[in-house]
Amino acid sequence: MKEWLDKYLKELNLTDSMNQTDGFCRLGYTEEEWRSIDVFVSLAEDMGLKIRRDEAGNAIARWETEDSSPAVAVGSHVDTVKGGGGYDGVAGVLCGLAAVKSLKDEGFQPAAPIEVICFASEESARFGVSTIGSKAMSGLLNKKEVEYVSDENGITIRQAIEDMGLSWDAIDAAERPESDLKSFIELHIEQRTRVEDAGADFGAVTAVACPIRLKVIINGQMGHTGTTPMGKRKDAFVAAAPLVTFISEKALALSASSSVPIVATASTFELKPNAMNVIPGTVELGIDIRSVDDSLKKEMEKLIREKCDQLSESFDVKIEVKTLVHNPSIQLDEAVMRKLQHSGESLGYKALVLESGAGHDVMNMVAKWPSGLLFIPCKNGLSHHPEEFAALEDLEMGTKIIAQYLKMETSR
Amino acid sequence: MKEWLDKYLKELNLTDSMNQTDGFCRLGYTEEEWRSIDVFVSLAEDMGLKIRRDEAGNAIARWETEDSSPAVAVGSHVDTVKGGGGYDGVAGVLCGLAAVKSLKDEGFQPAAPIEVICFASEESARFGVSTIGSKAMSGLLNKKEVEYVSDENGITIRQAIEDMGLSWDAIDAAERPESDLKSFIELHIEQRTRVEDAGADFGAVTAVACPIRLKVIINGQMGHTGTTPMGKRKDAFVAAAPLVTFISEKALALSASSSVPIVATASTFELKPNAMNVIPGTVELGIDIRSVDDSLKKEMEKLIREKCDQLSESFDVKIEVKTLVHNPSIQLDEAVMRKLQHSGESLGYKALVLESGAGHDVMNMVAKWPSGLLFIPCKNGLSHHPEEFAALEDLEMGTKIIAQYLKMETSR
Repeated sequence: MKEWLDKYLKELNLTDSMNQTDGFCRLGYTEEEWRSIDVFVSLAEDMGLKIRRDEAGNAIARWETEDSSPAVAVGSHVDTVKGGGGYDGVAGVLCGLAAVKSLKDEGFQPAAPIEVICFASEESARFGVSTIGSKAMSGLLNKKEVEYVSDENGITIRQAIEDMGLSWDAIDAAERPESDLKSFIELHIEQRTRVEDAGADFGAVTAVACPIRLKVIINGQMGHTGTTPMGKRKDAFVAAAPLVTFISEKALALSASSSVPIVATASTFELKPNAMNVIPGTVELGIDIRSVDDSLKKEMEKLIREKCDQLSESFDVKIEVKTLVHNPSIQLDEAVMRKLQHSGESLGYKALVLESGAGHDVMNMVAKWPSGLLFIPCKNGLSHHPEEFAALEDLEMGTKIIAQYLKMETSR
Repeated sequence: MKEWLDKYLKELNLTDSMNQTDGFCRLGYTEEEWRSIDVFVSLAEDMGLKIRRDEAGNAIARWETEDSSPAVAVGSHVDTVKGGGGYDGVAGVLCGLAAVKSLKDEGFQPAAPIEVICFASEESARFGVSTIGSKAMSGLLNKKEVEYVSDENGITIRQAIEDMGLSWDAIDAAERPESDLKSFIELHIEQRTRVEDAGADFGAVTAVACPIRLKVIINGQMGHTGTTPMGKRKDAFVAAAPLVTFISEKALALSASSSVPIVATASTFELKPNAMNVIPGTVELGIDIRSVDDSLKKEMEKLIREKCDQLSESFDVKIEVKTLVHNPSIQLDEAVMRKLQHSGESLGYKALVLESGAGHDVMNMVAKWPSGLLFIPCKNGLSHHPEEFAALEDLEMGTKIIAQYLKMETSR
């Protein structure tokens, strides 16, 4: 099975080698993502699955049965961030297909349909909006809110979707009725080292930590770098710098004093006019805050707002703090989590029950269907990085756990 | 004369009103700069001056005399930064022409030719290379070094110059022999408030503070913002933030403890990958350091390099510091400075003898010809900013001082 996993891991990544200095780049709703989904489709067809591409660009590969009861589904995505790894997303799609293959190989006959779903545009890397495909499938896509959100080239989500041959106006039709699915599970690389650190083999996930995202806009005053004395400046960059330090130090301190961790990152930054001889007049800072403890996130936001007030006064600049996203954490289905845990344990693998620091397609699916998330380890917890890596042994373990779960859920 | 100055100030700025929320944008070697130079040319022609456009795009307006002795020249530029003001550069060109007009109006007959020069592309805003026109005229243009330097759209200096109908290969011919000019003076807005603060009316400049410019490249490690624990990060932005604070605080402290001021600015910044859910892996920081005391600039560079070593260790990131520019300060001609000072004082204006924090075309001209620089006040010292402003009274004063100087230098 490892050979099969290795072969199709590369094919789904459109590559001959997983060793890529610059990583992979398959942004959502681009030709690159589409080519990878095409590999998924043709692989699923070869396995005898029936393919449907929905109105959001999701690909649904279905093991049809005579019994038309709700399907048991497994899935993830194949898009990546810029310079990302080849396992985030792909691992879930690959192991889902491999699990179906292994069930077919052993002659298993499911009593209910099984689906492997490849969601479109999970990463927020292109538009700042994540999990578009699974939002559409579970009826959570706020069309009005995102229609004219654009990428760095000014292409809107509407336009990007139409450019892929889909119809924005028809995207609502991607929503599926509750009766379509019995449950949904996703396999994902952990993106941390908690499973490994605990001496466990895999993770069964209880909840997903969703972000609060802030935009901080600091308006100082432009001026000539050579002629404006140091004491007479309103340099927006100088006002922003202590905030970056504060966010990092405060998140570390809050994590140390709380029962669950919190992470906070100043991850985006724009400086204007960005010219060697002009004092920065305006900066815009994007901040991502995550924890499964929502009160901890709110505490962090409050501390950041207080710090901004203080910096505004100290540096005589105007600071505006906007809340871009404020998503409470999402609880996954406990029964599905237990089943995933027991599926793994019945095969001799040691489970760690934990929460997820990152968002995944499953967080939308759980709004409509009982859903669960399975983690396999990845090297050094590295993700969204060219050196992202998961061992074939762990992909094989994930495949076996999924197969075990599907078998249990679709046995006569 | 104020009415005349007001009219042509607007015409040279291609506008009906100096009140522009977004300021002016006439980058070097663009249609906008060329249209402004065309106004200069047609105004000079109307005054009976002879026009020559040289191979670098400089426009030279000459009051020819029977005596073909070296000319006494005055000039500046009309290009601006993005969102810049309408006085930086234009003031010098305008007052030069106005001075010639006033001499003509009073029937003055110069014994030597007088020139008003409008230099091309003084600002570094487009290419990061400043004073291209005056460098070419004084033989200081390093063609090899700048040929393939490009703007943000990837257009090289070579291409930009060719796009304006000039020939890059012929640009050397813009260099003038020493015998062409007797002396050169430039009028410029001060871009600080030292003249005003000292209770003076104008400034006579001794030297130009030229920059040391550094590029600091910090390489940390990308990672998922939601899953990488705070204690396990190598966030390049978090490593950069204390450096921005350090530069600002250290320049302030060094200025307080030295006889001349120093300014240092973190003015450009690029963050990669600049995505909401990815920890910043790489940042590039541009630093501009200026003082007329070269040893003070070197001290500042040394302190920055030491701070980078310390940050590299504290944050476990790689930091590289490159010196982009290291220009020693430039002494202007003392005799010309005295003449400018006395010209103003003879008219009843109070002079402050001071240095310039910014570079100007005069710093190239002085390499070949005795040259001086005259400052007129500008409101709040603001420059490279839409609210840049100089009073018509001060433009009139500048005109009178230039006229007085030209008269003195070209009398029979």
